[in-house]
Amino acid sequence: MNLVLISIGLGLLAIVYGFVTSRQVLNSGAGNERMQEIAGAIREGAQAYLKRQYTTIAIVGVVVAILVYLFLDMPRGGAPISAIGFLIGSILSGVAGFIGMNISVQSNVRTAAAAQSGLQQGLTLAFRAGAITGMLVAGLALLSIAGFFYVLTAVMGLPANDREVIDALVALAFGASLISIFARLGGGIFTKAADVGADLVGKVEAGIPEDDPRNPAVIADNVGDNVGDCAGMAADLFETYVVTVGATMVLTALLLTGLGDLLIPMMALPLLIGGVCIVTSIIGTYAVKLGKSGKGATNIMGAMYKGFLLTAVLSIPAIFFAMWLALGDMNMVIGGENLANVDPGAPLAEEGTSSIAGFTGWSLFASSMVGLALTGLIIWITEYYTGTNYRPVRSIAKASETGHGTNVIQGLAISLESTALPTLMIVIGIIVSYQFAGLMGIAYAATSMLALAGMVVALDAYGPVTDNAGGIAEMAGLDESVREKTDALDAVGNTTKAVTKGYAIGSAGLAALVLFAAYTADLAEFFPLLDVDFSLENPYVIVGLLLGGLLPYLFAAMGMTAVGRAAGDVVKDVRNQFANDKGIMEGTSRPDYARTVDLVTKAAIKEMIVPSLLPVLAPIVVYFAINLVAGQANAFAALGALLLGVIVGGLFVALSMTAGGGAWDNAKKYIEDGNHGGKGSEAHHAAVTGDTVGDPYKDTAGPAVNPMIKITNIVALLLLAALAGGGA
Amino acid sequence: MNLVLISIGLGLLAIVYGFVTSRQVLNSGAGNERMQEIAGAIREGAQAYLKRQYTTIAIVGVVVAILVYLFLDMPRGGAPISAIGFLIGSILSGVAGFIGMNISVQSNVRTAAAAQSGLQQGLTLAFRAGAITGMLVAGLALLSIAGFFYVLTAVMGLPANDREVIDALVALAFGASLISIFARLGGGIFTKAADVGADLVGKVEAGIPEDDPRNPAVIADNVGDNVGDCAGMAADLFETYVVTVGATMVLTALLLTGLGDLLIPMMALPLLIGGVCIVTSIIGTYAVKLGKSGKGATNIMGAMYKGFLLTAVLSIPAIFFAMWLALGDMNMVIGGENLANVDPGAPLAEEGTSSIAGFTGWSLFASSMVGLALTGLIIWITEYYTGTNYRPVRSIAKASETGHGTNVIQGLAISLESTALPTLMIVIGIIVSYQFAGLMGIAYAATSMLALAGMVVALDAYGPVTDNAGGIAEMAGLDESVREKTDALDAVGNTTKAVTKGYAIGSAGLAALVLFAAYTADLAEFFPLLDVDFSLENPYVIVGLLLGGLLPYLFAAMGMTAVGRAAGDVVKDVRNQFANDKGIMEGTSRPDYARTVDLVTKAAIKEMIVPSLLPVLAPIVVYFAINLVAGQANAFAALGALLLGVIVGGLFVALSMTAGGGAWDNAKKYIEDGNHGGKGSEAHHAAVTGDTVGDPYKDTAGPAVNPMIKITNIVALLLLAALAGGGA
Repeated sequence: MNLVLISIGLGLLAIVYGFVTSRQVLNSGAGNERMQEIAGAIREGAQAYLKRQYTTIAIVGVVVAILVYLFLDMPRGGAPISAIGFLIGSILSGVAGFIGMNISVQSNVRTAAAAQSGLQQGLTLAFRAGAITGMLVAGLALLSIAGFFYVLTAVMGLPANDREVIDALVALAFGASLISIFARLGGGIFTKAADVGADLVGKVEAGIPEDDPRNPAVIADNVGDNVGDCAGMAADLFETYVVTVGATMVLTALLLTGLGDLLIPMMALPLLIGGVCIVTSIIGTYAVKLGKSGKGATNIMGAMYKGFLLTAVLSIPAIFFAMWLALGDMNMVIGGENLANVDPGAPLAEEGTSSIAGFTGWSLFASSMVGLALTGLIIWITEYYTGTNYRPVRSIAKASETGHGTNVIQGLAISLESTALPTLMIVIGIIVSYQFAGLMGIAYAATSMLALAGMVVALDAYGPVTDNAGGIAEMAGLDESVREKTDALDAVGNTTKAVTKGYAIGSAGLAALVLFAAYTADLAEFFPLLDVDFSLENPYVIVGLLLGGLLPYLFAAMGMTAVGRAAGDVVKDVRNQFANDKGIMEGTSRPDYARTVDLVTKAAIKEMIVPSLLPVLAPIVVYFAINLVAGQANAFAALGALLLGVIVGGLFVALSMTAGGGAWDNAKKYIEDGNHGGKGSEAHHAAVTGDTVGDPYKDTAGPAVNPMIKITNIVALLLLAALAGGGA
Repeated sequence: MNLVLISIGLGLLAIVYGFVTSRQVLNSGAGNERMQEIAGAIREGAQAYLKRQYTTIAIVGVVVAILVYLFLDMPRGGAPISAIGFLIGSILSGVAGFIGMNISVQSNVRTAAAAQSGLQQGLTLAFRAGAITGMLVAGLALLSIAGFFYVLTAVMGLPANDREVIDALVALAFGASLISIFARLGGGIFTKAADVGADLVGKVEAGIPEDDPRNPAVIADNVGDNVGDCAGMAADLFETYVVTVGATMVLTALLLTGLGDLLIPMMALPLLIGGVCIVTSIIGTYAVKLGKSGKGATNIMGAMYKGFLLTAVLSIPAIFFAMWLALGDMNMVIGGENLANVDPGAPLAEEGTSSIAGFTGWSLFASSMVGLALTGLIIWITEYYTGTNYRPVRSIAKASETGHGTNVIQGLAISLESTALPTLMIVIGIIVSYQFAGLMGIAYAATSMLALAGMVVALDAYGPVTDNAGGIAEMAGLDESVREKTDALDAVGNTTKAVTKGYAIGSAGLAALVLFAAYTADLAEFFPLLDVDFSLENPYVIVGLLLGGLLPYLFAAMGMTAVGRAAGDVVKDVRNQFANDKGIMEGTSRPDYARTVDLVTKAAIKEMIVPSLLPVLAPIVVYFAINLVAGQANAFAALGALLLGVIVGGLFVALSMTAGGGAWDNAKKYIEDGNHGGKGSEAHHAAVTGDTVGDPYKDTAGPAVNPMIKITNIVALLLLAALAGGGA
């Protein structure tokens, strides 16, 4: 039980880091009165939005918690353990988003102030703010599972592989996912409706620059960065962490039977890996410093990479240490014995036979290295597709010369193409980690990917802070040189934002396999007499794959439409304000920012509900529909196939949208840097169109696909448990 | 053997219809001298392109034919039967495209001339031209399989389910598919490079209207309609027909063992269904007449529907008649006995057991009705998504008011959304036909869908004729009222073009299942000792699904990039012509049309090669790579999963691109009809951007996904046969 407590301790360390660093950030200068006034308006808007969003989600959450209690806890006649797990997951997911957003709205104005002193000062402040969010996300996620697991097993004395413990962990993951899809989608709709709406009516119609204080939607646009790119992203990564680590623990409990004394260490190992990587992530944050050579974006990106690389390299011995601590003997064979690369004379961890091939500590370690390598490769590929230095972004910029149409065609071509390398890497990652240690290998590759979440989130959360800082500098009329510095920081933010999304969806590819394995293991346990045919030769499997593949398309369509509709409302509101008060354009009277923020808030909350419920209801509807037509065995087969269909379909939709959107945005930035005619040229107008198209792609529909995939899988697991409890 | 001869006779009937009707078309007036001159330039360009395209394809074709001989025929030590099958398929696919194109380039000017007399006259001529292409495609496709099958079985005396016969039928389908992907993609790149290029430099830069004779790319644009939308489409549908009917015959031979005397009738039945539906299609063409009420597009669409509906309704008794003729007793049980809805007292067709569940003539008939219903539903859904009367197109038109960006966002949202209903219909079609008669039910649903190909192609091929007619009317300076009539005819063409693509890809969804069943049946026959695990629990199945899902994305990316690149070349050429000869814009000297046509020809041929080889090489590379890492059983599992991955991924890519592109095009037309500000308004500019983006979506990348899916499947079948022949 020591290992779980160590993990809890390391989770607390992340919280301490966050607390100490936030003191440092808050103690730095907050700029002049005008800057503070603007930052205050942004803060108020963001807090008001989040309050309303969480109130709405709370209603859904309470209903679902009751359903979890009724269908999972009550049939067992026990305590409401799963319902409590669900609540822990959902509340902490909300807390992660809330804290991240609060740090962000405090740091934006301070970053603008710091950028007055220099690029390094601005970078330090913005990155520290991102690091606080990163460590809090990783720390809270680790604490939630480790703490809950500790209470269930050590305090309540339940066996670690007890069905109640497994279901409770799944319910915790469900809570995290459900909140995160609402937060990702609601925040994504808010931020892009405000952004697109502000651009359309400001840049295009009124001919005023971005972030001009005369634009009534300008505060809403800046609020959006915080509630979407920061709070939504934080909830999303919290969810990804909890689901991946939780699924690895659940799979351990389900597959590795007869482990004896090794059960607890094996279930605690994923937690411990997460814990030691918090330490390496904290160390890595201190390496983010500008180099002496290089300039602008390249130099800033280089500083980020230094931090990430240090974390990744230090994580190699750290993960080894965690495994050695948990297993004692790295050569000991765990599980079955039919793995080729096991030394025949090695000691065996268990007496009985296990349902999976055997592996050793070394093979788990090798699988974890696959996860680290995959993380690095995905970051590198994403930078290639979204960075201004490479072919993809430049080809979009060049295509802008011949107009809006060719810009969008080339952007779509790049977004389709950008799926290829990450998919190949994921496929190779699956094959290699499976060769090392079977399904557990895939689970450990995913876990070690997520163990770096603290650092990856730090890179991402820095983006909205700099974006806001630029807005505040513009609105407060600071010197042009300040805006140049925040713009340089922001360009890198576009790439790091895309990186996190590629990373999250890539890890989802692995995690979904783990969840599917949990689904089949559960099925075998709950319905041992049912002969479910998961073969591709079963037409109901094809039906499931097709329906699963459809979900991300339908979901993305709903997200895109919602942004278009809400942005239209913004345009009307701003036009209305301009028409009713001529003083706004003349700069003599101030627009009613709060009215626009309120309008976008209402629209985003309204629009997020239906798409978010799609992945919750789809598995249930498909199961009962197929059950009616072709019986329970085929219904389970179709449901299982749906889980894989949603990942096969969703992976491509998410990868193409997030990388494509990032490429469009940076193609515009590349032109604004003076290429192909620069600002105001025809090419620039075309690039602005591409950027607008990319906005809902990369910040609304694309990233929300990740929690959507997980929810579909988790609902299926809970459905199984509920059906089994309901009298099977 | 009678049934095969009847089918051949009905195939010849289609040829006779084509011959007689083409006399009628050619006898009608060909317009004034200027019109004939323009039409002559278009004809020459189209013929020159097709000649060069077929020369290039012929080189690839000869190489592949030799490979087919070396790997399939030679190990067997027999005659080059498969190689000849491949050549028949490829040559007739080319012939179908060639004749279709030739009819189209003769009818365009005659349609323009006829439209001078009235809308009905224009419609009659254009639709007759389309019907000739439709009947020739269906007739040639039927003749190729039926004739080849007759020679193999009746003349050479091979048993109908002999391995040589099966492989030869698959090779014939391969030939058709390989040519059709080149034709679809090459023609698609040509037509859209010319279209986009002409628009960019003409409409956008020079400010001259579409089809203005001063634009050097205007002839290339009109050539493109013929080589892409007509020749490419005809080759594609020829392929779809041959593969679907051929796969049903192959599946019959593989699954229904011990049929005895019923084997030949059962293998001939798909041919006979195709034959009788040629008769119903011919009758249907005579019902295409404008009604007295309604006006414009609605009325024209109504005339088309009358023809289609008559064909569909008449096909119900016709298919029943074909089945009754083949089986004699519709209640006789064929195959195994474990089907619930079979009368226990019914006579059995065979003595031994069969590997699939039993079914009767009635259940096959019911499955065929599913195919007819599916065709109707897909047409109806496609019209909803691409017609100017419904929400989707109007929402794009409305979004154009707020700019280029919102037009594209809404168009993308619609294109994503448009996949939902067709997928649901296909899923329901799979379930219902499978419930009726197992895998054979799915095969008969697909066959009866394709049996209507003559009529569906007729609706489609009419489009490019009217599009060209409009261009000729414009360039020859005919009265504005003529252009109005051809425009009305053309708007319907956008919908019917989208319909055919939805229909082709929908049928591909069913046909791919049939091909996958053939793959597993082959695998069991060739490698009886190999235990291939197709279960979703096998990670190599996931790997195959992911790689399969990737193929359409990569393929579409290549197609889109190719169009962008080739269109850029067109822009440069036209700019160059304008700069070097000021007289062109003044109308005093004629541009060098042939130079632009030649340039696009070279670009399209060059660009089509690599993407077309992707689906040919991917299955081979995946098999050998996985074989190296994880052994032959896992390699076959991954390859099988790849086949399904490519359909699951490809279905959504193809549906979204074809429907989305059609919707964008008609949103522009809707605005040009005077809505949202009409021609020249800001909304119209935005809609032109959307149309440009939709062009390569709907006419290059999207439709080529259909043959791509089939090629991947067929190459896998041939690879199996080659591996088995090579010493397994």
